[in-house]
Amino acid sequence: CTITFHPDNKKVKVPKGTDILNAAIAAGVYINSSCGGEGICGRCKVIVKKGQVVSEPSGRLSKEEIQKGYVLACRSTIHSDVEIEVPPGSRLGKEQILTEEAKVERLAGLFSEAGEVEKGIEFKERKFFPHSPLATKLFLKLPPPTLKDNISDLERLYREIRRKLEIPIIQTGLANVKKIGRLFRESNWEVTLLLGKRNGTTEVVLIEPGDTSKRNFGVALDIGTTSIVAQLVDLNTDKTLGTKATHNRQVSYGEDVITRMVYAGKKDGLEKLHHVVIDTVNELISVLSTEHQISLSEITGVMCAGNMTMSHLLLRVDPTYLRREPYVPTANFMPVIRAAEAGIKINPRGLLACLPGVSSYVGADIVAGVLASGIDEADKLSMLIDIGTNGEIVLGNREWLVCCSSSAGPAFEGSGVRSGVRAME
Amino acid sequence: CTITFHPDNKKVKVPKGTDILNAAIAAGVYINSSCGGEGICGRCKVIVKKGQVVSEPSGRLSKEEIQKGYVLACRSTIHSDVEIEVPPGSRLGKEQILTEEAKVERLAGLFSEAGEVEKGIEFKERKFFPHSPLATKLFLKLPPPTLKDNISDLERLYREIRRKLEIPIIQTGLANVKKIGRLFRESNWEVTLLLGKRNGTTEVVLIEPGDTSKRNFGVALDIGTTSIVAQLVDLNTDKTLGTKATHNRQVSYGEDVITRMVYAGKKDGLEKLHHVVIDTVNELISVLSTEHQISLSEITGVMCAGNMTMSHLLLRVDPTYLRREPYVPTANFMPVIRAAEAGIKINPRGLLACLPGVSSYVGADIVAGVLASGIDEADKLSMLIDIGTNGEIVLGNREWLVCCSSSAGPAFEGSGVRSGVRAME
Repeated sequence: CTITFHPDNKKVKVPKGTDILNAAIAAGVYINSSCGGEGICGRCKVIVKKGQVVSEPSGRLSKEEIQKGYVLACRSTIHSDVEIEVPPGSRLGKEQILTEEAKVERLAGLFSEAGEVEKGIEFKERKFFPHSPLATKLFLKLPPPTLKDNISDLERLYREIRRKLEIPIIQTGLANVKKIGRLFRESNWEVTLLLGKRNGTTEVVLIEPGDTSKRNFGVALDIGTTSIVAQLVDLNTDKTLGTKATHNRQVSYGEDVITRMVYAGKKDGLEKLHHVVIDTVNELISVLSTEHQISLSEITGVMCAGNMTMSHLLLRVDPTYLRREPYVPTANFMPVIRAAEAGIKINPRGLLACLPGVSSYVGADIVAGVLASGIDEADKLSMLIDIGTNGEIVLGNREWLVCCSSSAGPAFEGSGVRSGVRAME
Repeated sequence: CTITFHPDNKKVKVPKGTDILNAAIAAGVYINSSCGGEGICGRCKVIVKKGQVVSEPSGRLSKEEIQKGYVLACRSTIHSDVEIEVPPGSRLGKEQILTEEAKVERLAGLFSEAGEVEKGIEFKERKFFPHSPLATKLFLKLPPPTLKDNISDLERLYREIRRKLEIPIIQTGLANVKKIGRLFRESNWEVTLLLGKRNGTTEVVLIEPGDTSKRNFGVALDIGTTSIVAQLVDLNTDKTLGTKATHNRQVSYGEDVITRMVYAGKKDGLEKLHHVVIDTVNELISVLSTEHQISLSEITGVMCAGNMTMSHLLLRVDPTYLRREPYVPTANFMPVIRAAEAGIKINPRGLLACLPGVSSYVGADIVAGVLASGIDEADKLSMLIDIGTNGEIVLGNREWLVCCSSSAGPAFEGSGVRSGVRAME
């Protein structure tokens, strides 16, 4: 059947019996769904304009609404070509791409406010973090082999790396070994390496001819339950070149982490949640790279902070056990992998690292907040309050920290609160 | 065109213009070719029985031979359906699969002779090598998580490994992380790990439900220029369960390492040489596993010794630079990879390690010989003579060792010696 969504006039063909919510997702039309399609929240009301739709009865619809043709998108299946009106109350706001300026100001604000708490001294003057990116480029002029110095190409490379850096364990994949014979000779023994930090070892991730060491970029990702922010960073200078943000498209499958986890347990649910977040991330990276004239192959690392559910879904790891007693993550310290393994489009051999969290509901997002604000290094007591879709509050100092977390966004935005609404234009 | 080879009566379809040597390889018919198809050695004489063949003139054929229809297979192209007779002098002998007994005797002979050199004491009494296989299985009963002990599944696994073994760096791939949530719970927290040695770190290669630790097998490969020997080993007991040997099918592309290297430089040459050696290895492993009722998935590691050219070709690494001054290998210490990356069919996550050599013409084969005979630990001077297709002689003791190597087989077997012939039935 063909289903047409108004006012966007977007069409999609779906099998008979598909529910309207899933058809909307397939069409790229976003409909609110706080409960993840369980028929509970009543946020996905749509109006059937034309065609045959079979709906389950729902206490969420008034008599008046039913007379006007309102149905719950998640509880209504399509049985002919239909036309559906999505009323303003059921739509997501326009996907706002925040400008670079706005975002940088917000972050600057975060830092300076934190500084004020500490009398504006401690935080403002210290350098927050030493320069130590996930992946570093190193230009090398290798001494060409001679009859007297005839060690193999790979050992020659390792020897030269160790002359510059103290690295006990160096690893390289077979793909690199296969190409170095020709590459070293064609590049006249002048090559640039990308050295990546991988699970306690150093990997020679890339070997490129000539000196490409000036071009090395990374992406920092903040994967929120509702919004995703990506920053493009020059890994040589630490300079943030640009910032983009957009909705996490997983919102169509449920507003908070609990409904996402429930959805992940459904048929193909994990797959879908994984793919939409990856699509969102790829879109942000693509926009950033185009805007700053950086090729995707020059982006060599992605560092991600998100709550535990977001980290699991990003890597397509089943989050089911996060919500079952005794509430344990499958992995807290996720292995550093190739970004391509998760479907993220940067250099095909580039790396993806996820910051670790503390427990199932105290994730890498709040850990990143603690580290960025520096309250873990302060002598005095500080409190960090992060009200996102999930809210966390951390209290403590350099000696101890305690954290509580709870669903926060839906309380304001209307999950179970009839008159709440998400911030919109 | 269809080409039929007698006396095997093997047929193959090839494009017009294909040379007979390559057609024979495609048909699975082995024709001698000491020089690797360069038209130099004259070992690939065949008789054209029927059909149209265009041959280059060759000084390797007598007038009499030309009258009888002899041509050089490598210098003759096919221009219609043809029938070709491969005379006995141009055939490889039957592929002998040596019996287990015969082979074990040979190896026992090697050891005891070496022992006699040292008055039968030093070698016979020492235990040659401590038990330390490439991949070890470990059965673990994990304590299930509780509200008080709620670390993640992956950290729980690492914690338990470290209670048993001292392993500073443990790595695991995303594939394992994805499955442990369900696997741990369905197996009631009783699992068997395969711990592999990978480039200075320990990898959790496999995680299996229940106790499979009794079943862990490896294959030791001796990849010779002419013969390949595989031994199936029980990695728990060190017992060699069986041994099989066969011709290295690369022989069709040249008899010695130099001609193989030349062939590797031709179009698709490297690819072909790589695939035939892998096919040979897979066949040996398949026969061994069937005979000993071991599933391929229970074979978790392959350890390989071969000369430098063989190691390069096994991993599909271009051997070109081995034969060009200053004669350096691309890699001497090859990275430990998944056997599947090279096309070897064992457990898909099982490992493949190649012993290192010393230089381009002193490879892992002679290094393995030195280690196995123990002359590197002897006080007195010993000499190790390994006459294979390549011959090496090592002289020395625990303080120093010198080695010379040269082509040996072809000198006896007829490359450039008209009346030489390979040992045959």
